[in-house]
This record gives sequence, C-alpha cells and structure tokens, in this order.
Amino acid sequence: MTDKNIYSYKEGDGKNKLLLGGKGANLCEMTQIGLNVPPGFVITTKTCLQYLEQGNLPAGVMDSVKQHMQSVEADSGKQFGGVDNPLLVSVRSGSAMSMPGMMDTILNLGLNSQTLNGLIKQTNDERFAYDAYRRFIQLFGKVALNIDDKHFDEHFAAIKKNAHVKADVDLGVAELKEISALFLQVVREQTGKNFPEDVYEQLEIAIKAVFNSWSGKRAVDYRREFNITKDIADGTAVNVVSMVFGNMGNDCATGVGFTRNPGTGENEMYGEYLINAQGEDVVAGIRTPKPVQKMQDEMPRLYKELVELRNKLENHYHEVQDYEYTIEKGILYCLQTRNGKMNAVGMVRSSIEMVKEGLINKNQALLRVNPNDLEQLLHPRLNPNNRAIPLAQGLSASPGAASGKCIFDADKAELLGLAGEKVILVREETKPEDIHGFFKSQGILTSRGGKTSHAAVVARGMGKACVAGAEGIRVDTKERRAMIGERVLLEGDIITIDGSTGNVYLGELDTIEPEFSEELKVLLGWADEVARLKVMANADTPEAAEKAIEYGAMGIGLCRTERMFNDVDRLPIVVEMILANNKEAREVALSKLLPIQRSDFKAVFTTMAPRPVTVRLLDPPLHEFLPTEAQLHDELKNLHQLRGTVKGVANLLSSIRLSQNNPANLPTPLPSPFDEMSEDMVNEVIAKKERMLQKVRELYEVNPMLGHRGVRLGITYPEIYTMQIRAVLEATAECMKEGLPIHPEIMIPQVVTSKELERVKEIVEITKKEVEQEHGIELKFEFGTMIEVVRACMRSTQLAKVAEFFSFGTNDLSQATFSFSREDAENKFLPLYNETGILHDNPFEVLDVEGVGQLMKMTVEWGRKSRPGLRVGICGEQGGHPDSIHFCNHIGLDYVSCSSPRVPIARLAAAQAKLLEDSYVAE
Amino acid sequence: MTDKNIYSYKEGDGKNKLLLGGKGANLCEMTQIGLNVPPGFVITTKTCLQYLEQGNLPAGVMDSVKQHMQSVEADSGKQFGGVDNPLLVSVRSGSAMSMPGMMDTILNLGLNSQTLNGLIKQTNDERFAYDAYRRFIQLFGKVALNIDDKHFDEHFAAIKKNAHVKADVDLGVAELKEISALFLQVVREQTGKNFPEDVYEQLEIAIKAVFNSWSGKRAVDYRREFNITKDIADGTAVNVVSMVFGNMGNDCATGVGFTRNPGTGENEMYGEYLINAQGEDVVAGIRTPKPVQKMQDEMPRLYKELVELRNKLENHYHEVQDYEYTIEKGILYCLQTRNGKMNAVGMVRSSIEMVKEGLINKNQALLRVNPNDLEQLLHPRLNPNNRAIPLAQGLSASPGAASGKCIFDADKAELLGLAGEKVILVREETKPEDIHGFFKSQGILTSRGGKTSHAAVVARGMGKACVAGAEGIRVDTKERRAMIGERVLLEGDIITIDGSTGNVYLGELDTIEPEFSEELKVLLGWADEVARLKVMANADTPEAAEKAIEYGAMGIGLCRTERMFNDVDRLPIVVEMILANNKEAREVALSKLLPIQRSDFKAVFTTMAPRPVTVRLLDPPLHEFLPTEAQLHDELKNLHQLRGTVKGVANLLSSIRLSQNNPANLPTPLPSPFDEMSEDMVNEVIAKKERMLQKVRELYEVNPMLGHRGVRLGITYPEIYTMQIRAVLEATAECMKEGLPIHPEIMIPQVVTSKELERVKEIVEITKKEVEQEHGIELKFEFGTMIEVVRACMRSTQLAKVAEFFSFGTNDLSQATFSFSREDAENKFLPLYNETGILHDNPFEVLDVEGVGQLMKMTVEWGRKSRPGLRVGICGEQGGHPDSIHFCNHIGLDYVSCSSPRVPIARLAAAQAKLLEDSYVAE
Repeated sequence: MTDKNIYSYKEGDGKNKLLLGGKGANLCEMTQIGLNVPPGFVITTKTCLQYLEQGNLPAGVMDSVKQHMQSVEADSGKQFGGVDNPLLVSVRSGSAMSMPGMMDTILNLGLNSQTLNGLIKQTNDERFAYDAYRRFIQLFGKVALNIDDKHFDEHFAAIKKNAHVKADVDLGVAELKEISALFLQVVREQTGKNFPEDVYEQLEIAIKAVFNSWSGKRAVDYRREFNITKDIADGTAVNVVSMVFGNMGNDCATGVGFTRNPGTGENEMYGEYLINAQGEDVVAGIRTPKPVQKMQDEMPRLYKELVELRNKLENHYHEVQDYEYTIEKGILYCLQTRNGKMNAVGMVRSSIEMVKEGLINKNQALLRVNPNDLEQLLHPRLNPNNRAIPLAQGLSASPGAASGKCIFDADKAELLGLAGEKVILVREETKPEDIHGFFKSQGILTSRGGKTSHAAVVARGMGKACVAGAEGIRVDTKERRAMIGERVLLEGDIITIDGSTGNVYLGELDTIEPEFSEELKVLLGWADEVARLKVMANADTPEAAEKAIEYGAMGIGLCRTERMFNDVDRLPIVVEMILANNKEAREVALSKLLPIQRSDFKAVFTTMAPRPVTVRLLDPPLHEFLPTEAQLHDELKNLHQLRGTVKGVANLLSSIRLSQNNPANLPTPLPSPFDEMSEDMVNEVIAKKERMLQKVRELYEVNPMLGHRGVRLGITYPEIYTMQIRAVLEATAECMKEGLPIHPEIMIPQVVTSKELERVKEIVEITKKEVEQEHGIELKFEFGTMIEVVRACMRSTQLAKVAEFFSFGTNDLSQATFSFSREDAENKFLPLYNETGILHDNPFEVLDVEGVGQLMKMTVEWGRKSRPGLRVGICGEQGGHPDSIHFCNHIGLDYVSCSSPRVPIARLAAAQAKLLEDSYVAE
Repeated sequence: MTDKNIYSYKEGDGKNKLLLGGKGANLCEMTQIGLNVPPGFVITTKTCLQYLEQGNLPAGVMDSVKQHMQSVEADSGKQFGGVDNPLLVSVRSGSAMSMPGMMDTILNLGLNSQTLNGLIKQTNDERFAYDAYRRFIQLFGKVALNIDDKHFDEHFAAIKKNAHVKADVDLGVAELKEISALFLQVVREQTGKNFPEDVYEQLEIAIKAVFNSWSGKRAVDYRREFNITKDIADGTAVNVVSMVFGNMGNDCATGVGFTRNPGTGENEMYGEYLINAQGEDVVAGIRTPKPVQKMQDEMPRLYKELVELRNKLENHYHEVQDYEYTIEKGILYCLQTRNGKMNAVGMVRSSIEMVKEGLINKNQALLRVNPNDLEQLLHPRLNPNNRAIPLAQGLSASPGAASGKCIFDADKAELLGLAGEKVILVREETKPEDIHGFFKSQGILTSRGGKTSHAAVVARGMGKACVAGAEGIRVDTKERRAMIGERVLLEGDIITIDGSTGNVYLGELDTIEPEFSEELKVLLGWADEVARLKVMANADTPEAAEKAIEYGAMGIGLCRTERMFNDVDRLPIVVEMILANNKEAREVALSKLLPIQRSDFKAVFTTMAPRPVTVRLLDPPLHEFLPTEAQLHDELKNLHQLRGTVKGVANLLSSIRLSQNNPANLPTPLPSPFDEMSEDMVNEVIAKKERMLQKVRELYEVNPMLGHRGVRLGITYPEIYTMQIRAVLEATAECMKEGLPIHPEIMIPQVVTSKELERVKEIVEITKKEVEQEHGIELKFEFGTMIEVVRACMRSTQLAKVAEFFSFGTNDLSQATFSFSREDAENKFLPLYNETGILHDNPFEVLDVEGVGQLMKMTVEWGRKSRPGLRVGICGEQGGHPDSIHFCNHIGLDYVSCSSPRVPIARLAAAQAKLLEDSYVAE
C-alpha cells in the first residue's frame, strides 16, 4: 500500500483496521459489498500519529482532503459550502479498537450563515435547518473549540423555559434562531473569535480536534482500563462522511440495531429508532426511542429493508453486528457496522445458535467468547420467589442484579467504591465523563436513555447490571435525591436493581447464585473436548468441593489444610499446639487435631471421587494462628482491670458477709456475675495470655512472607506434618475400604531442596506402612511438591526425582521473582508501575510470562529430564486468568487450578489456548 | 587394591589417605622412605565403617590382627603378652583429615599383671613399669571402658597429696603400685568386671573404642564445624604400633616438632621435648616441655639426627611437617608426621621462603595458603606504644591480641559469647571437651602447657589469640577466680592477652590494625599476576576508600549512597525530605543534600583515581531513615510530660511574679532550664514527631525486604535519583576538570525490568547534558544495574541492552531465591537446616552454587547475548568467600567486590580459582 493519507470508501482495504480504524475499514467494506453507505473518505491513523508527533497535519493532507471532498460532492450531487444545495458532513473518529463514546464526533459540518440558507431552501424546512445549525455550533464549539457545554446549555434551558417547552422537538423556528444567535455569541465570548464561516477551515479544525481526542484523558483512561496497547490500536482515523438526515420530517428516522439481542443472544431484530431525529438523539438518550419492531407498523417497507440489511451483515461478517442507520426521506442508509459488544449470555447463546445455523463452526464459537466475560454469568440474580414490589421500572439494559447505596455522581461513587462500599450509580443519563464511576459501582440506574444509551452500552461491556430509562424516577443531582412519585430516595439509601427485568427496588433483595445455562453447558462441553489442560479448583472444604464440581472442576488442585485449622472449633487446639513448650505437649494437641483433619479429608475425598484431590500440608507461619501483639496487649489490659473488679467485688462481698448490721439489707451472698469467678481464675487466663504474648514475640518475623513456614515448619516440627500425613492416609484407607475410587495426593509447600522432600517422604513412607498395617489395605496416593520458591525452579531436576508431580504456586513465586511483597506493592508502587507502563499487568493477577513464566518453562523442562512425563500444574491466582492459561498450555503444563468461580473461564480459556496453540510465539 | 582390612606399614599405599587415614598412610610412606618408624600396621577406615554399620568387627578381622601382630613381634623382637620381653603397642585413630584431639588413643596396650613383671625385668625399672601400668589402666578405662576420669583422678590426687608430691615424676614406686591397684579397683567398681588380662581382648576392645570415637559427639561436632564431609574423610583407621618409650630413663625423651615455626613461618628447628616422658606429657601440657634448641646441649647427637629427620621430611613432602618422635634409650624413632597446621603468618612466610629455597614453585605457594586463614592477619595487635605492665607472662602460643571478660569454663564462655560478649577463656589447661568454648571466645589463656598443648594447637587452627603456660597464674575454677601473686582476678574482669608476646594485661588495651607483612605483599602480588578476576571493595566513604586501597582493592565495586545519608549531620535533611508532603518540599530538602553528596563523591573519586568507583543509588526503604513507631511513641510520651512540666513551671513563675509578698525571696524571674522553653516550642516538637509517626505508619511494610525500595523509590520519587545522579555527575565534572583519571559508574538497585533502567537512564541523559553544559566538559562514566532480583536474572538479555555492566547483589538475590528472610532464617530454622545437612552451608555466607549460582550463570550468558563482553561482577557478602569466588571465576565474572578486610582473601582466592579452573566440574 502506498503512503497515502486518505482513502475513499470505494478504494480503502476493508481488512486494514490498524490503518483505517474499525469504522473506516468497515465503511470501505460495506461500500464495497454494496450496502447503501453515504459517500465519504477516511484519513488514516498514521496521519493521526504524524499529526500528534509534529503538532501539525502532514504537508498536503488538506489538499488531498479537498480532492476527496470533490469526489463526495460529485457522488452526492451537493456542494460543500454551497449556497443552493449544501453538502454537510460528519467528522468521526475511528481507531482499530472500538472505544464507544471515548473520542469525538462532529455532525453537520459545513453549515454557516450562507449554507444555512441553502439548507433551508433545499429542504424547505427552516426549523430543521436551524435545529441542525444550533446543534452544529454547540458540538463544534465543544469538541473543536473546547468551549464548556454549560455555556450553551444555560441559554438552551432558558429559552426552553421561556417558551414553556419540555422536549427539544417542541421548540419553534423562532426559538431555534434565537438559540443559534446566542450560540454564535457564546463562541465569540469564549474564544474571542467569530465562529468560522469557511467550511474548509471548519473541516481542518474538526479533523485536528478528532486527532487530538486520541490523546485526551478519557481516551487514555479507557485504553489503560481495557489494555488497548499500541500494537492493537495506535491513533485514530478520521471519517469524513456526507450527512444524511433523519430529522428532515416524518419520512425520516434514525436508529441503531444489533443483528441479535446482545443481552440474551436471541436471534431477533433488535434495536431502537426515532422518527425525525438525528442519530445522537438515540445514543444520548435525550428522547426515549422506540423498539425496532414498532417500525413494522410505522414504516413497513423500510422495516423489510432493515431486515435485509441485517441479514446481509451477518452473512457477510459471520458475527453479530452493531449497526447504525438513517432514513432520509424514505431512503435507508447504513451508517456504520461493527462487531457487536454483547454480554456473556448473549455471546454464549448466539455462539451456540450460529453454529446450529451453520454460520460458524464449533471452534469459531469457542474462540468468539471472551472467557473473562463468563464472569458475568456468575453474577447473582434476584431470587425469583422475591415478592417485593418495584419502586420503578426502566429498560433491562444490562443483566444481573445488584444492590448498593444510591449515589448521584461518578466521583462520589468512585470514592465510596474504592473504600469498599457497594454503590449503585444513579443518574439522569450518563456521559463518557462518568466512566470512572462505572468501574467502582455495582450497577447503574438512569432515568433517561434506552438500551443503546451510553449507560447501557458501557455497563454491558463491563458486565455490570444496568437499568436505563427508568422515567418514573426524577433525579435531582443538586439536592442529591431522587423522587419516585411522592417517595424520596436520599443519597445513601440502599436500592436493588435488576438489569434483567429493568426493575428497581428499595433495600437489599435476596439474590441467588447463577446456574449454568444450557447453552453455556454446551459451550463448555465443547471446550472440554478441545482443551488439553485439565481445570481443577482450589477448594478446602466439602462444601467448596461440591461447588467446584458444579463449576465443572475436574478435581481439586489445591486443598489448603490450614483453612481447616482456622475454624472456631479447631483454632483453640491449634493454639494449644503452638504454645506447647516441647514435642510431647505438641503431640497431645496434634492428637486432638488428627481425627478432625481425617474426617475433613474423608469428606472432601468422598465428594470429589473419582476426581483427584491434592492436599497441601501446613503452609503459613504459626504466628498467623495467634492474635497480634497489639490485640494481646489490649486483652491483657482488660484482664488486669477485670482482676481489679473481681478483687473489689470479693472484698465487698466478704465485708457484707462479715457485717452483722447489713445496712442495705442486701442478701448474703450477693448474687453477682462475679460470683462464679475467683481472682485465681482471672490470673489463670492472664497467665495464658501472657504465654501467648511471649510466643507471639518469639515467632515475630521481619519478613513473614520469607519466614518460618511451609516445609520449614514440617522439618522443625516433624510431628505436625506427621499428623497431617496420617490424617490424609487414614482418610484414604477408610475411603478405599468403602470402595470409593479416590485419588489423593500429598503436596509439600515452600520446598527449596530435594532434601526437604526426602525428609518428608520418609515420614510419608513410615506412616504409610503403619496405616497399611492398621487397615490391612495397600494405599494408593501420590507425593508432590509446590514450586513456589525460585530455588525449587533451579533444582527441579533433583526435585522431580522425589516428587511425582509439581504444582506452581505462582502467588508466592511471583512475589519472590519480583522481590515484591504483594500487600506492600499493591499499596505503594505497583499502580504507578502499571499506569506508566513499566509493567503491563499486575503480576499477581496475570502471570508474568517474561519473568515468572520463563522460570516455569525451565522448571518444566528440567523436571522432565529426570522424570519424563512429570505431571505439572499451577495453583496460583493466575491459574484462572485466560492469558496465563494460554501460557501454561504453551509450556506444556497438565492442569490449572483456580478458585471455583473461575473454573468455567479457565475451561473456555484452556480450549482457546489449544486452538491458538500454533499462533503462540515464545518470546 | 584387594579388599583387605589391614595393611602393614611396609605394604600400605602412602597416598591412600581415604582408606588408611592420614596417620596410617604417612606411617606407610615414612616406613617406605626409610625413616625409623616403630613397626606396626593399620586397620582401614572401611573396616571402621563396616564396624559402625554392623555393630561388630567384620569377620576375620581379629584373626588378621593376630597375624600382623606376629610380624610386629618378629620385627621388634618382643612378644605381645610375653612375660619376658613384652611387646606393648599404641592403638591410635587416624582419619583422612587431621582432627587433633578429637578421637581416642590408647598407649601401653598389652600390659597386664604378667607382662608388667616382664617389663620390669626387661627394663629393670620398676618405677617406669608401674607408671606405664597406671597410665594404661586409666587411659584404657576412660577410652575403652567409658569410666569417668574423675574416679581415677581423685585417687591419684589423694596419693600425691599424702606423699607431699607436686609433680608426677616425683612419685615413687610404692605410690605408683598403690595407684595401679586402686585403678584396677576403680575398673572393677565402675564396670563390675575385672580389668581384662588377655592382651588380645584388650586389643579388640581398644580397636572398637577407636572406631566408636568416630561417631562420638566431639568428633561429629568438629567435623561439622570444619565442614569435614564424607567425601573427604569417612571413618577412622586404627594404627597399631609397637610402643617405644621416652620414659625409660634420662637417655629417653619424647618430643614434637614442626619443620618450620608454625607461628612465624621461620625456617628453624621448632618444637619441644621432655626427657624421660611419654608423648602425651608434651601434648597434654602436664609438664612444661623444653624448646628443641635445648637438645643441642642435652643430647647433641640426637639433636643432629633430629635435624636430619626434619630435612628428610621437608625434602620428601615439599610441605611443612608436624612430626612426633620418641627417643628410647638413645634411639630416635619418628612416630608420625603430617602437614603442619600453621597460622597465616607462618603459611605466608614459609610459602615465600620455600619458593626461594626451590622446594615449591609460585603457583604451589599460592595454592598452599588457605585464603580464609589470611583473616588472621587482620586481627588487631597491641599498640606498640602501649606501656602497660603485664600481669603475667606465658608462651606466645597463637598470635594476635584479644580483650574480653575472663571466664573460667567453656560452657559459660560459649553462652556469653553467643550473647555477644567478648570473652577470654581462662583455664589451667584445655581439653578437647572445651572446644565449644573456643569457638565463642576472643582468645584463650592457660596456666599450663606449651606451644603444642591442646589450647595452643586449637587456637592457632582457629586463628584465635592464645597465651599458654602462664605459670604465674593460678586458676581456681571452683572459686571462679585466678590468683596472680597476691592479686585476684575475678570472673568477668576484663583482660587483654597478646598471643604474639605471651603477655597478659589487666583491662582492655589499645590495639592497632595489622599491616601487611612484606611476605604477604609478595604473595598477593603473585596472586594478582595469576588471577583473572579483579577484586574490588565495598566502601562508602573516603576513609573507607583509603582502607580499600591499603588492602589492595582494584576499585570500589559498591559505594552505597545511603550510608552517606545516615551521618548525623545529614539525617535531619533526609528526614525533612521524607516528611515532605509534595514534590516541591521534597526538592527543597534534596537541594540541601546535593552539595553534600557531591563532595562525598568527589572525595571518593579522588581517593580511588585511577581506579573505578561504582556508585549505587539509594536502595533501602525510606522508613529505615525514620525512628520506629515504638521509639516515637516513647518520645511523644516524654514530650507530653515535658509539656506538663513546662506549663507547671510557667505557672509557678508567673505566680511568683504576680505575688507581691514573695515568701521565699526568690529572684524574679526564676532562673530555670525551662526559661528559654515555651509551651509553644514543645508543641511544635510534638507536632513534628506526630507527623513523623504518621509517616512511619504510612511507610509501614509487611515485608520490607520485598518493599518500596531501590529503583522503585527512584521511579516513584524521581527527584531523589535526579539529585543523586546530579551529585555523581557534578563530582565527575569537577574531578575531570582537575585532570584526575577517574572512572565513575552509576548503578541502579532492585531492578526487575529494563523499563525501570530506561526511565532512570533518561534522567541520567538529561542531567548529563545539563552538567556538561554547565561545566563545558564531556563526561565519561558508565551506567549499570544491580542484579539482585530474580526477575532481573530472567530479563538479563533485555537489561544488558541498557546496562553497561551488571553487579550481582547476592545478599538480596539469595534471600529471594530461597524465599528466606536472612534475619528470620538465621534465628529460626537455618541452623537446623545446616546441622542436619538439608543445606550444606549458610547461603548468606557461602554462595549457593546450585540455586543462586545457576541463576547467575544463566544471567551472565543471557546478558552477553545482547552485549558481548558485558562486564559482570558480584558485590554481595559472598563476594569475599573463597568458594564463591571460585564459582564466580568459573562462570566468567569479571570482578568480585567485598568488604575491605576480605580483599586480600579474595585476591588469593581469585588466583587459586584461576589455577584450579580446569579442575572445576560444573554440576
């Protein structure tokens, strides 16, 4: 391709989104497949980058723009700046990645005092022309001249008030003229210059404004939030397209549509339109549009054409499309189309159906669903037995139920959200400026706008619940309250919204966990067929094990025994063990824990049978089971006070008993809560707490993350591991005797050398023999190691001689590889590192392929040197992250283990990893 | 070699120390080179291992012993168990590694009631025979029958007391007879059996006892302390040698010698002897022996023979020998020889001289000195201007001066030493049981024994100061005091001993740092010629830089800028910077630090010119410069009290001023320390401390080792690094303008990704241009990175694109690789890990070749992929450890940097590494 700055839609390459932007490329493609697209051209993203770098448009660009405008003039039969039949254009941004609402668009460009008259003459509709004119002045003023909207809005509101008019469409010519004049005055006042009359000057300013919007704060924030990096979108293209008008009368309309229902995935006409309106009216939610089905009655011919358009789009793109159209005096123009952003429900259902319809195959179906989006399916729904009466109803704009305090602006929503509060952002309508509030809210409620309003689109993209256009609610941002009829909703009141029905309720309603849809089951079934990686769950209790099976886990990859220690009925025994001053006393406490752990294991094994269960022996440092030093100080302070009180009461009682003349006629003995409590008893508790305090001090560590934990405990206190091993093996024996097909595994944490493994293995062997003799059965289980210390990676050839399997503990391994303490890093410097691109991701969420990943790769290779076919998995948090799963698949891992709710995500990601295997390129 | 259990000295392989033990192999070699060695044979170490494993001597061993005894009988003309001319033998341990005093020896074996009479007849010396008899019974009783010495000692002391005899030699036949009888009775009482009369029974028991001593606590402790692993010594051999007697009269003697002076290395006759004594008398220090020179007068012929023996030994072994001999009735027997344990002074001087004498070449000289021993040369000496009058004088048994509390038993010395106290162990004489006390003492003082006494030998081996045989001191262990004439030395009194002169002083005397001897300079000069690795020092100040040059450092490999921050005059500015709430306030504080750092750097550069200086930018987390939370709490408590006092005084003063009738006639105003102090001032201090407290809480980290430090600080507060970079570059510019040939380098700590380096490099580039313009000079310097985070190892190819050099920070890297927090590990589990062999060494002292080392190896290879010839060094603590230096040499590092006092050690180790390069075998 030559180094052209501009392509007409007839010539541009519809596949080259990087150069032409998504919208531009699509317009080229649409034009070239014969859809009725308004004539126009696209200025490349490369031009944008040159402009942003140089601060100026590259030489010759405006000349080329003029040439292309001449073609558009020829195609449309109108003249740009023409007095008689003026050509108006839209100037729109469009980068390689869709960033809805993030960058600027200017409509009706080409209007000035001259062409305005031409437009009036041409359309014979003075009202329409002035309406277009005032819209253009405001939009151009805001976007291209950086004038604050409020200056325009004040005038507009005042005029409307004076005219006693509610809707914009009710404004008459006179008011619109007055508004236009006032708007021109605003421009003069705010910029010190007249509004540009020269249409090419308008065009040049607009092009530059669109380019500038690429580096605007909103766009930069959005790209960061959605990880849009330079290799996938760099710069925005500018589309200059001749305007078609949906607001030239009642044979005009404008609308948006999805080729399928993006909320449910259903194969149906979906969208909204407004008669006699411009496209922005639909999207901005200023007027509530009508569902597209209505068009069957209102414009039956055009509805048919729209159905044809929809079919053409899906047949061409093999993907659900999100399209915009305008009807100008009875002619349907397709303005744009792009792959539809659907929520997970929609993606899953449409995937299944498109396979059935033969539009795509199974693998394509698996690949088109973003695994992370499945998380939406795990959002709670309202309990269907709920009988609460809605406060109000709006449109079901993004499914899922959410409760929280209603908050009336994005800043406050963000603040409270950051502070851990559950928040519903409540607005009349939302704008791109509100996006930071979205991220931290549970859900969004608007009183205006439709299913394709900003609030709806953004909420769906984020998988957040949204009810839009709940017109019964009047939001009063100034007074920070909302009125629903007579009822007042104050800021901070808790509400529940149901994005699936559009209902809004007062208070926090009962929700239920989502079940898998049949479609999702089908899709994940296909995924399991394709995937090479097995997906396990991290689960520590029988209940969690059941949950894991529901989510489709193929086993438990990490069963943390310390979670069992933390239960209220066990903790005192654990504390007893820790306080023990010698091995014998420790063993007494351990012997009490043994039956508890055994029955825990037995229950988990039984639940999971025949799936494998990997039991990790005690990992955290012992001080984690004790109170903190500060807590104990407080407790002791209180106890000393109590002792004083007990003493006082005892003295009082005895003096009363001694006194023969009991002046107050008090009964003897005085009934008292201290009656049963002697000073000695308090002293005993004090002594125990003091022992605890001393132990806490003994166990104090400067860097607990790198401390006395894991196998280091197992080596220093072998009796602890001995108890746990015995509990596992006794549970195994009991299950095996019951004929259960169980697959238990014992896993050792924090290993740095094979010698540690050998020591523990000795205990295992001895205990195995003992249990086998006691039960008269031959035990089957495996013995493996966590790989979560860097040295273990380096020694994996040696470790694999002892361990039958490896499981990467990437939480700890990542901390050690980066020398970042997660708790400290995420509070101190990691956000800055991510924001400034020093690190692309948070390595505790997404596996750091370049560092931790390289270690893992070597570990697998070296481990399999001494044990070919060594089974290797991952059980860190990253094990449920799709990118990390791709990498795990690439380096030949056998399984990933993650929290249960991420299991479905991991199953899909594992399938995708296999499908994309060949395209993965190692660094 | 066949699987023989026993070899006679005529047939054993003198090179096979592993099988025959050092002593056995030497006796074979000595016999075979024609020295007059008493006939005997050696039972192999393998036999020992078989015995220890099976609990029994392998079948046939005792038969073979009998056969060999028959040969010895033939060679000596005596009969074992013979009544007329009885053969007595010594049974001695001897493993592949010398472990002086650690295992057991039995002399005079073969004596019983029958042979005793034969011995009397044969020697016509009843006194000698009974003396031998009582010695044998006691030694056999103790060693072979496990009878506590005290049972014998009590009888012995009582008899001596009754006889009013001071020295053993003054005991008469009657007493010795009585003693023998009593000793036989002790054996009966303690074992319930008669003393064995059968000489082969005696021999078998003795052989087993020697074998058992290999696994005794003392021996095991010693092997652990000196890292004697199975591959270098496994099991002890037993030497059965016919006794020759140095105590048969005044034509008899026994002695020990070194072929050169082991304390000074001087080429002279060195050693001690006792006439009419057995060897143990010399070693045990019971009688104070005479210097060997005395023999020239007392036994001139034998002295000549001894000189010949000495020459023969050195000419054969090309190594200084430590030998033992006995003269029996005018005939000189050489009993054993081994490589002499010399202190560093001795090793260095003898190395140089042996090269001059043509005995060895330069490389052999370099290889025979243990680099770690050079540390002894760095021990303080007494200031020669010291005019203190010694309390007492003893023998200069091990050089160096040491001060500490005098402590009268090893247990207490160990305890106090562990607690960090400086201790001098003071004993009448020391025994192998005392060795744990040696490890933790600064020096050893004995009132008895010579230069080859246990105390002297062990102290020299450890490089500890020792004064032995200070007979003017009477040690009273029971009363825990020592008498020196009338003066009483109580336990805990501080004394100073000078192991180089033998003087003992009261109090702590002024010491001076050692200077290099000429010989050491020569040796290290040879080392520098041979070595490939350069040796740098870690030094932070101009004074430290001067010291580094003295030690022969070739540059500064690590100049820690934070050390400069910690000075009293700088810390307040640093604190001001930390407390600053914004960048501007921070920059105000930094601008005060800039000139200070610049002048520091200038001074260091100037001192080191033309050697390179690597400046590391700020590394520790900021909270390290602030007081702890607890400290601040205390300070605030005190300040609040002070405020109360100030208020009270102010009230008092004003009431006095107001009072017209001043009753106490106090002057107005009252002079007071609070006069100048207002409540406001105190409030101001309180406010500041509270700000500090708040900041300390803000900066709190769960795992500070993995926290907000190093380049992470440089990225979050770029102004800090900007100041430091400017200080380095301004200092560079000033030095360059003065024509100094300096080589500054800027090094960045804690790097995990090349992006961090790029960010800092940008600052460097900008600052460079600014400073170049300001000074009109082109700056020359290098930019590099620490490699102390595992991820940096993984990303070394990328890092080397930005960094011009790497320096491994193996302190942090080892912590991260092991996930061991050094402070925690060394207190909690690392000692157990080392004791039980899970880890061979403390990885924070000795580089962990298998883990950390593998990471380093890969890092070097990968780094040089993108920058061939990349300069790489190490600046962790391990950089001064010989084993680690060998590894660094092996993996192609360019330099090591260590603390200055370890520089000489590192220089020698670097040379040895080069010499041994080919013999290094990678894992």
